[in-house]
Amino acid sequence: MTTVEANVSGPLTPEQQAEIDALRAESRATLRATVPELESILFEALPVLDHGFIRVVDYMGDDAAVVQAARVSYGRGTKRARDDQGLINYLMRNWHTSPFEMCEIKLHVKLPIFVARQWVRHRMANLNEYSARYSILDNEFYLPDREQLRAQSTENRQGRGDLIGDDEAARVLEVLREDALRAYAHYEELLNEGADGEPVDADRQGLARELARMNLSLNFYTQWYWKVDLHNLMHFLRLRADAHAQYEIRAYADVLAEQVLKRWVPMTASAFENYRLGAVQLSARGLEVVRRMLAGEQVAREGSGISPAEWRELMATFGRE
Amino acid sequence: MTTVEANVSGPLTPEQQAEIDALRAESRATLRATVPELESILFEALPVLDHGFIRVVDYMGDDAAVVQAARVSYGRGTKRARDDQGLINYLMRNWHTSPFEMCEIKLHVKLPIFVARQWVRHRMANLNEYSARYSILDNEFYLPDREQLRAQSTENRQGRGDLIGDDEAARVLEVLREDALRAYAHYEELLNEGADGEPVDADRQGLARELARMNLSLNFYTQWYWKVDLHNLMHFLRLRADAHAQYEIRAYADVLAEQVLKRWVPMTASAFENYRLGAVQLSARGLEVVRRMLAGEQVAREGSGISPAEWRELMATFGRE
Amino acid sequence: MTTVEANVSGPLTPEQQAEIDALRAESRATLRATVPELESILFEALPVLDHGFIRVVDYMGDDAAVVQAARVSYGRGTKRARDDQGLINYLMRNWHTSPFEMCEIKLHVKLPIFVARQWVRHRMANLNEYSARYSILDNEFYLPDREQLRAQSTENRQGRGDLIGDDEAARVLEVLREDALRAYAHYEELLNEGADGEPVDADRQGLARELARMNLSLNFYTQWYWKVDLHNLMHFLRLRADAHAQYEIRAYADVLAEQVLKRWVPMTASAFENYRLGAVQLSARGLEVVRRMLAGEQVAREGSGISPAEWRELMATFGRE
Amino acid sequence: MTTVEANVSGPLTPEQQAEIDALRAESRATLRATVPELESILFEALPVLDHGFIRVVDYMGDDAAVVQAARVSYGRGTKRARDDQGLINYLMRNWHTSPFEMCEIKLHVKLPIFVARQWVRHRMANLNEYSARYSILDNEFYLPDREQLRAQSTENRQGRGDLIGDDEAARVLEVLREDALRAYAHYEELLNEGADGEPVDADRQGLARELARMNLSLNFYTQWYWKVDLHNLMHFLRLRADAHAQYEIRAYADVLAEQVLKRWVPMTASAFENYRLGAVQLSARGLEVVRRMLAGEQVAREGSGISPAEWRELMATFGRE
Repeated sequence: MTTVEANVSGPLTPEQQAEIDALRAESRATLRATVPELESILFEALPVLDHGFIRVVDYMGDDAAVVQAARVSYGRGTKRARDDQGLINYLMRNWHTSPFEMCEIKLHVKLPIFVARQWVRHRMANLNEYSARYSILDNEFYLPDREQLRAQSTENRQGRGDLIGDDEAARVLEVLREDALRAYAHYEELLNEGADGEPVDADRQGLARELARMNLSLNFYTQWYWKVDLHNLMHFLRLRADAHAQYEIRAYADVLAEQVLKRWVPMTASAFENYRLGAVQLSARGLEVVRRMLAGEQVAREGSGISPAEWRELMATFGRE
Repeated sequence: MTTVEANVSGPLTPEQQAEIDALRAESRATLRATVPELESILFEALPVLDHGFIRVVDYMGDDAAVVQAARVSYGRGTKRARDDQGLINYLMRNWHTSPFEMCEIKLHVKLPIFVARQWVRHRMANLNEYSARYSILDNEFYLPDREQLRAQSTENRQGRGDLIGDDEAARVLEVLREDALRAYAHYEELLNEGADGEPVDADRQGLARELARMNLSLNFYTQWYWKVDLHNLMHFLRLRADAHAQYEIRAYADVLAEQVLKRWVPMTASAFENYRLGAVQLSARGLEVVRRMLAGEQVAREGSGISPAEWRELMATFGRE
Repeated sequence: MTTVEANVSGPLTPEQQAEIDALRAESRATLRATVPELESILFEALPVLDHGFIRVVDYMGDDAAVVQAARVSYGRGTKRARDDQGLINYLMRNWHTSPFEMCEIKLHVKLPIFVARQWVRHRMANLNEYSARYSILDNEFYLPDREQLRAQSTENRQGRGDLIGDDEAARVLEVLREDALRAYAHYEELLNEGADGEPVDADRQGLARELARMNLSLNFYTQWYWKVDLHNLMHFLRLRADAHAQYEIRAYADVLAEQVLKRWVPMTASAFENYRLGAVQLSARGLEVVRRMLAGEQVAREGSGISPAEWRELMATFGRE
Repeated sequence: MTTVEANVSGPLTPEQQAEIDALRAESRATLRATVPELESILFEALPVLDHGFIRVVDYMGDDAAVVQAARVSYGRGTKRARDDQGLINYLMRNWHTSPFEMCEIKLHVKLPIFVARQWVRHRMANLNEYSARYSILDNEFYLPDREQLRAQSTENRQGRGDLIGDDEAARVLEVLREDALRAYAHYEELLNEGADGEPVDADRQGLARELARMNLSLNFYTQWYWKVDLHNLMHFLRLRADAHAQYEIRAYADVLAEQVLKRWVPMTASAFENYRLGAVQLSARGLEVVRRMLAGEQVAREGSGISPAEWRELMATFGRE
């Protein structure tokens, strides 16, 4: 068991950082495609939230692999010159997703359990999680920043809205911190297992790990390896780097979008921003409205077949509040 | 082996139709949700192309099942009244796809092999195909309608363009028909197997079915059971009922969209039309252009960061050629 | 918020039971296959653990649908008579899995969060979970039976072994119960939301639901709809009704195997028991050993290429300790 | 269009081989895990059947990545020393499949269309196929070796049995060859497109590629990129390197098992042979019989609950005919 002061460490211990340094010191020769920009951060821990991180631990393919799959090598009909960025834009715009599936990335992620529960809804990925049946979880839990302590949103049934007041915020943090510390202390008591694997209290047998863990709360950190192809990574980012996603998972999505995707596949990342992240979808009825407005007509919501909420969103999208 | 005149039958033999009639004659009691509109065509063969069909053979769930999944029964926070169509629209608009996965449909489909090859690219479905290792394929092959005999498109690297001339069309049909008839006759010769399972020519052993089939061409019909959830069915329809899909698979998608989806889940079908089939996606740069045009600006392609092809498409979408 | 005494209720409230009774009172006509044995428990809550349940809320297909898919209707080569149980045995024995994918079942499950975390590792299924971003979780948490309070297994790195003593057991239950009650009381305090949706304490705004939930521990109950095909259901059961699975998820698997699978598809359930649940796999080296033993040879582990642990397991399997 | 003599070439043209040589000439530095044994054949075409090949074009991970995922880095509970082969054996034996999903391989495969149709039934993989809507297929088709020209099996409803006689074999090859050559000549005629993309016959428009291809038979070659994780690759091999698989797809599976898997992940390949390829599964009833035989009992099929076919297989497995 850890004897260090709980919940004050950075994401990595000195031993873990040394292990990473050792991995980064050893270069090998390969005939495969490499991405030097991504290799420059390989194995490094990119910090997320108070104790979490994302580490890229392996990858396969690059922008050129997407292009190659789209052209399917040796296909005569598509050999005409077309620049790679143009082809990637075309694929993204027309939802030709399979070429993006030819690239793969493997991450080591440390994240709060309630974030992990949202994350696994993305089923088209491979996962190996740290097992609390075999092993003892660390005393690390998530406490939100002051800036994130917000009330339930009034516009949006899910999600957070206004900042709560200082007194209430202080009380929230006190509750979260004390309950987590107590939960972990009790977890250790239930386990009754010292760092040497021997009982702390020789008169007790200790509870099985798979049972004791149930006393921990959802803000404790877990970790896993997560491997996903580029198409499914972008699908994850489209949903989780979105303003409607919960802040805590968005923090991970943002690091992936900004620090990983752009380094790994810059052309794909550029197309992704234009055709996915910054794009909007217009319903058939919304399109009809915009066409009429462009033709100079004054269009009213009444008779458009569009609900008030969707109308507000439509007008906001086109800067016509 | 069939001794009937090849390739002249409708999609079903009298025996098959009698089997369907028998299935439709027997009603049972259930506590499950039922959809009388869909039951009205259950087991019936909906014709597609010259010898193909789609038959709905089972289904599970309805529009209400989508709503129920979205509200997750007993969830207090979402009980406020909201009409079902409005909720389904909301789900579709915001890509909340999992409630649509709660409905399932099972089809029996007869289709040309080259269509089957496109169809299986949709992996999130269950499939049992008629096996030409065990069984002998029927002498039925697809011949396009005169209206479908078109040249390679000049605008679009894939797909067909102008109608070809009458003489050339006649020759095309002659080639396709003669080659298919010969291929089937040779298939029968290679198999050397009579309707009684005995050799036709007692001096030959006959070739294994799994080998003999390789002589058949890609326009021969196969058949399968295909089971898919409502979300993945709509994904299939969005890609295959699209103008860029090959006509032959679109013929199947159109029957599914018009004759099956609307009967089964009318509210979902309505939302699907508005938010998917008739919807357009606007890239970040495209959105910027439309916003500026709505603000009264004259916008030129130059400097917009949009390619000529995408610009033409954008202007056409908004009726601004 | 619930004001009822926490954690003492059965799995359903009287209102929920009334809702189920209403659902069961209304029968409809269908042309689809029905399974009267399964209809007899449709919608009913089958209790699991102290507050959990499994409810079958919809299904599609039966044993005959498996047979039909295997024969692929109208396939001439496979029409020879063969009894259905024999065909199902053949499919199961030879890992022909796709016909079993033609049946589908939809469940409503209430389960502790730590069980839910194991359950979702089965990705080939559809899921809609009660959202604690939208809604407020109930004050219900899992406390193990006395019989389940066991120490870490000494033979098996994961899993539980011997019963712990009475005093320690009493302390475990006290810790789990008090921590959970306190966590929920604090959850309510953080939310600051009355049954009417108004603040309890008018001076505080209350914390967003998506944040407050992080204070709950992993033994709190959640609920979801889970839809899965018969093949993947059996895969789940093979892994989770196994002696190596954690007791708490096994409790769900056992109810599914005994009370659901056998009612729904009795022939498939029988084949599943013989060819999966009760079956053993013999490695190439293990097979060699058994062959030699059957030939009357005395076989020693040394030289067999089999590890001591695997050898013990092999001997135990064949009753040769 | 190709003007070379049809169907006489090896798997690669000189231009293609030169492209491969160029790829193999350029080495890069990487921090990722590399597998020199696999790099030694990277990009090279491993011949299969008469014109097919398998080329490994990229890979990610090695045996150590499986081990690392199983231990999930930094997990304290599993740090005790255990040799890597032992851990991999343990994972394979106990169907802990997720660590094997952490490795990925990407292949370029050239294969007859009827083989491709079986291959795609493995849905858990990524695929980009050469498109005959965009491009023109080559004049290459599969003709079986003399040794493969066999009659329908009499024991097994699918599959091939005895060699057919010389005269019949000669006729089979004549039919297959002439029909394929004619089909391709007609394909070219329908397309009416020269190597320069201009019409061969200026009086005709030529038929769209997506239509003309339907005249080709199922033994023509197609090609694709196929990317799959190690777990799903082994699942493919277990089914397709099996004696019940059709010879032609088995030819591909054998090359993958022998020439690729063993080079890439030798420890996993060894465990795969012992616990999958060479393993047998024993039903509950079969196990009971073997136990009784080991105890010295004479056991008769009657009363065992085992069918005659399964009994014969059981006795053969244990060398007790």
